[in-house]
Amino acid sequence: MYSFVCDYGEGAHPQILKAMVSANLVQTDGYGEDQFCDKARSLIKQHLNNNNVDIYFVSGGTQANIISISSSLKQYEAIIAAESAHISTSETGAIEATGHKVIELPTNDGKINAQQVADIMEMHLGDVHNVLPKAVFISNSTEIGTIYSKEELLAIRETCNRYGLYMYLDGARLGTALVSANNNLSMSDLCDIFDIFYIGGTKNGAWLGEAIVVVNDNLKPNFRYNIKQKGALFAKGKLLGIQFIELFEQDLYFKLAQHSTNMGIHIRNAFISNGYQMFSDSYTNQQFVVIPNEMLAKFDEKYRTTIWCPYDENSTVVRFVTSWATNKEMVAQLVEDIKKFKE
Amino acid sequence: MYSFVCDYGEGAHPQILKAMVSANLVQTDGYGEDQFCDKARSLIKQHLNNNNVDIYFVSGGTQANIISISSSLKQYEAIIAAESAHISTSETGAIEATGHKVIELPTNDGKINAQQVADIMEMHLGDVHNVLPKAVFISNSTEIGTIYSKEELLAIRETCNRYGLYMYLDGARLGTALVSANNNLSMSDLCDIFDIFYIGGTKNGAWLGEAIVVVNDNLKPNFRYNIKQKGALFAKGKLLGIQFIELFEQDLYFKLAQHSTNMGIHIRNAFISNGYQMFSDSYTNQQFVVIPNEMLAKFDEKYRTTIWCPYDENSTVVRFVTSWATNKEMVAQLVEDIKKFKE
Amino acid sequence: MYSFVCDYGEGAHPQILKAMVSANLVQTDGYGEDQFCDKARSLIKQHLNNNNVDIYFVSGGTQANIISISSSLKQYEAIIAAESAHISTSETGAIEATGHKVIELPTNDGKINAQQVADIMEMHLGDVHNVLPKAVFISNSTEIGTIYSKEELLAIRETCNRYGLYMYLDGARLGTALVSANNNLSMSDLCDIFDIFYIGGTKNGAWLGEAIVVVNDNLKPNFRYNIKQKGALFAKGKLLGIQFIELFEQDLYFKLAQHSTNMGIHIRNAFISNGYQMFSDSYTNQQFVVIPNEMLAKFDEKYRTTIWCPYDENSTVVRFVTSWATNKEMVAQLVEDIKKFKE
Amino acid sequence: MYSFVCDYGEGAHPQILKAMVSANLVQTDGYGEDQFCDKARSLIKQHLNNNNVDIYFVSGGTQANIISISSSLKQYEAIIAAESAHISTSETGAIEATGHKVIELPTNDGKINAQQVADIMEMHLGDVHNVLPKAVFISNSTEIGTIYSKEELLAIRETCNRYGLYMYLDGARLGTALVSANNNLSMSDLCDIFDIFYIGGTKNGAWLGEAIVVVNDNLKPNFRYNIKQKGALFAKGKLLGIQFIELFEQDLYFKLAQHSTNMGIHIRNAFISNGYQMFSDSYTNQQFVVIPNEMLAKFDEKYRTTIWCPYDENSTVVRFVTSWATNKEMVAQLVEDIKKFKE
Repeated sequence: MYSFVCDYGEGAHPQILKAMVSANLVQTDGYGEDQFCDKARSLIKQHLNNNNVDIYFVSGGTQANIISISSSLKQYEAIIAAESAHISTSETGAIEATGHKVIELPTNDGKINAQQVADIMEMHLGDVHNVLPKAVFISNSTEIGTIYSKEELLAIRETCNRYGLYMYLDGARLGTALVSANNNLSMSDLCDIFDIFYIGGTKNGAWLGEAIVVVNDNLKPNFRYNIKQKGALFAKGKLLGIQFIELFEQDLYFKLAQHSTNMGIHIRNAFISNGYQMFSDSYTNQQFVVIPNEMLAKFDEKYRTTIWCPYDENSTVVRFVTSWATNKEMVAQLVEDIKKFKE
Repeated sequence: MYSFVCDYGEGAHPQILKAMVSANLVQTDGYGEDQFCDKARSLIKQHLNNNNVDIYFVSGGTQANIISISSSLKQYEAIIAAESAHISTSETGAIEATGHKVIELPTNDGKINAQQVADIMEMHLGDVHNVLPKAVFISNSTEIGTIYSKEELLAIRETCNRYGLYMYLDGARLGTALVSANNNLSMSDLCDIFDIFYIGGTKNGAWLGEAIVVVNDNLKPNFRYNIKQKGALFAKGKLLGIQFIELFEQDLYFKLAQHSTNMGIHIRNAFISNGYQMFSDSYTNQQFVVIPNEMLAKFDEKYRTTIWCPYDENSTVVRFVTSWATNKEMVAQLVEDIKKFKE
Repeated sequence: MYSFVCDYGEGAHPQILKAMVSANLVQTDGYGEDQFCDKARSLIKQHLNNNNVDIYFVSGGTQANIISISSSLKQYEAIIAAESAHISTSETGAIEATGHKVIELPTNDGKINAQQVADIMEMHLGDVHNVLPKAVFISNSTEIGTIYSKEELLAIRETCNRYGLYMYLDGARLGTALVSANNNLSMSDLCDIFDIFYIGGTKNGAWLGEAIVVVNDNLKPNFRYNIKQKGALFAKGKLLGIQFIELFEQDLYFKLAQHSTNMGIHIRNAFISNGYQMFSDSYTNQQFVVIPNEMLAKFDEKYRTTIWCPYDENSTVVRFVTSWATNKEMVAQLVEDIKKFKE
Repeated sequence: MYSFVCDYGEGAHPQILKAMVSANLVQTDGYGEDQFCDKARSLIKQHLNNNNVDIYFVSGGTQANIISISSSLKQYEAIIAAESAHISTSETGAIEATGHKVIELPTNDGKINAQQVADIMEMHLGDVHNVLPKAVFISNSTEIGTIYSKEELLAIRETCNRYGLYMYLDGARLGTALVSANNNLSMSDLCDIFDIFYIGGTKNGAWLGEAIVVVNDNLKPNFRYNIKQKGALFAKGKLLGIQFIELFEQDLYFKLAQHSTNMGIHIRNAFISNGYQMFSDSYTNQQFVVIPNEMLAKFDEKYRTTIWCPYDENSTVVRFVTSWATNKEMVAQLVEDIKKFKE
């Protein structure tokens, strides 16, 4: 059975594997202080159009979130996030385990807005009996595939400025957001908007790896201590550098994101044109479809997917995820089946 | 310049790279629940001669220590370790960051002994104003290349039994310990001695990866929650499984350890036969040599090494580390130079 | 101006002060190991009708919550509470600071119910990517003055049994709950329902002090270590014991609660009979009244109260709190003013 | 039997009790925002000869240490202390429980010196694999009754300046240090030397209470959040203010310290003049005497003391502690017995 379960079901893009083989016996220092990581940092800075940032590579998204958030907060400070955010629901209380509350905001589309942030601040300011919110957590694309417009992000940025908040981006699926047809945000906007963010590699063609970008000068000093303390400073750090060189030396990062996004849109369009309702307005690589319960078995026979949540008594939200490696023919077959199953 | 700086300066053994390439496009579930990890677990259990253990793969040693130790302790409990232990000196307070004191014992040879553990327990028992020691941290081989005899470990085990302590092994360099000429410990002894331990891959031929083995039934329930919370549950967990299959399907793990150990012994013997004093009785892949200060430059010109610590006013302890990838010809040249520099 | 701001605005009941003076020069050991604490423990056990509990005295409610909850949970475990619970809104993230998530449930009346707990468990069970809920937090009376019936608590207890959850009571205002006209819960029920709870002294006539009662045998071993580690083990622990002797040697605890409750009910009845809407069904010492905004100034001129929250565009929820020391004449005057202001 | 076990065996000085009775029914706001705390703050500032400090009252020394230290450190930062320091041995790992390593320095006299601090800094600076020391912990008087000279403290201050370290004073027994015959430090020196410190009330005549003084502007913002989060913000905060008014309105604080110190010196002199060896050079209220084992029973029959540690095979270090309430006649009798037992 072909799997649309996730975007981390396969390994790495062949070009990355080739680079790993080629660099294998080069002797370097450990812990990210090597020529590969240095070159990768330099390439990413070019894409960001910003030389005044510090870049560190870690292995996964939860790790990037733990390090970035816990190092940004004083012990009584908290972070604001959507109730559907990865740190709210999918990291086993990792942020709380570092001592900080996640203030969860209601959301229907996976996003939060500037007004919600302002309201939370007004509720909390000056009340020593409650936590002091100090950061805002954004994921783009979100956990249900939606993306933020540049204007939405700038409005949140303005609110953050007003209340002295850090603005953080979980970019696990940043690639698919940036290449989405509806997107008007670019790589070179990121440093203007976010104080700290990470560019996800694991879900966009790398074996593993996320690049944390520290923009705000307040957050830069001694940042590597945070990485080491959380067990995230790789001995063979070059493994991460080698992969990010391949992703950003040319446009591989964007090409892979475009492929997975295109595959997602094919699936989306097929469902819509066959009368299905979509659970979220996703123009990225994750598609959430409302499927009548009596039809679930048909899909399950041929495809592996994820049951997201019940929609109502008669139907269920099912997640289809595509990746850099998703097979075009299999998508074509799924598209055909969507039509066929309906008949 | 050739580097004897560390055992993580190169990539992975070619056989491992080949397996990564071959498995690259196989679709699997994430987070370590795949056929590769399952097979790797099964192979390791055979080597341990024990089916009643739980095995998890994480990316690095500090991570393995954080997860294993923090999940073993209640909030007021502490771990006992040598003052030179990795958790004492080289993990940026990672254990304390999870809330637990590391009680540091003095050591000359990198090891601790049963009497020291008993003494600490007698000092602490019944004193609610002090932490309650609940675990003992052992590294084998140690941070200065020495190894424990089976008898030494069994004596500590007996003390742990007497005081209700968990006994934990940091096996970052377990391979080189097991193949050392002086060793009388075997893989199949480990589950009899330790409640929890990890088998190090990163410093023995893998790109990255350590296998945590949970032996004590008390420590088993919900162990994966600990891994996820600390950001150590890899999305593409199979990357770790693939590597451990190669290491343990045949005897690659031990062959690679034997090579690095042999290279270390060549270097050791060369220094000794040229009248140098060794800083530790290491028969493993790390050699610590007392080098007169006026000779340091000669070595520095041709070889990269680590200044470990001053020995006295006139001489310095220098560390030479070999790895699975250390080049025989370069070692031969170093051996020759040791002699030549002396003339 | 007379204050109805809180139930901790005055000092201690004179009988308690007298006992403090009388015991002042008796030499005792420190840290709660003295004859006063022992006697107080014994008296409380009689009131609980249970000798098989461990009792510890600490200085305040947040401290009692920190110690009780953090010592009950493994690092990946969480506690379920109402979104209005003290640990959710009024302890500056104290529980999260010990590493644990507070899962907040929506509530209108300050209470949570068994079904909500069951629903949360069904959502979380088996998902290693989310925290594991392991305890339920109850406050009685609640933060808005409501109380639980015995039946409601038993239903939650049953759900806790089904899912293996600890059930914890924050009894900061337990006294006023137990003497409320609507109450059917008794002191001797507490050990049947809760695994651990505390009896609040600070808000019921003591200078300071809460008695933590540990019922569940799993939570008993080494409990004092938790108290000491959180800085809550008083050197002069007898100060707490002396006070709890007075509260529980006769029925002072209940008499004081009855007084503050009666005063609260007088105020409640006065508002209702003058056509005011109450924000919560409180028959305890906290009364929440919806007051038209144009009338706020009248009350503010003569009485100090707390603005709780806006009710709608035209009215505001105001909190009136009474205590063991609330002056009957001042309440009579307030009752009169309520009527007069309306005219 | 008369007790020389500790300086917290009795209650509070009668003048303090009287003030508590007198203020008992005054209605105030909670959480330290009342006229009593305000006045106490003002009085302490006069004694410190410094108006530019922030002062907070908490209930005990461990709490003061937890709050002051954890709020001063970033997550990867550590504090340097003597191995005999209260935070090293007597707080159940409270500092580590907030995530921070205590770096323990060897000491014979309970003190640490500037050179030790400098050496630790040189060992740690620039090593991302180890914690970053950021604060120095001083207790004065120390845990074995010794005191620092002003010159010793200034030398440490200079070292702290050189390395960017905060210097913290645990003043649980500050009173007895300041009135000691050998002392050349004054209250008005404290703000010049320390970034943050606390003045101990519990061990010098109060029922309970320590005054945290925040000197360094970096540590001031939002300090109360730290207090609340650790469960140390008293509802009836005025209880602490009332006591500190009495201690510092006149010179009660110093008079009580003088009494306990005098009593300690009497005991010291008696032991010395009868040929006993003292374990530490203490001119404060704690005396550590080396007593031959065969004489221990004689003392135990009439006096309660603390066995501190074995001295050698034949003798034991015994601690005698005096307090503000220590009875002169009982000391006179002890002095006589010291002589008599020797005969």
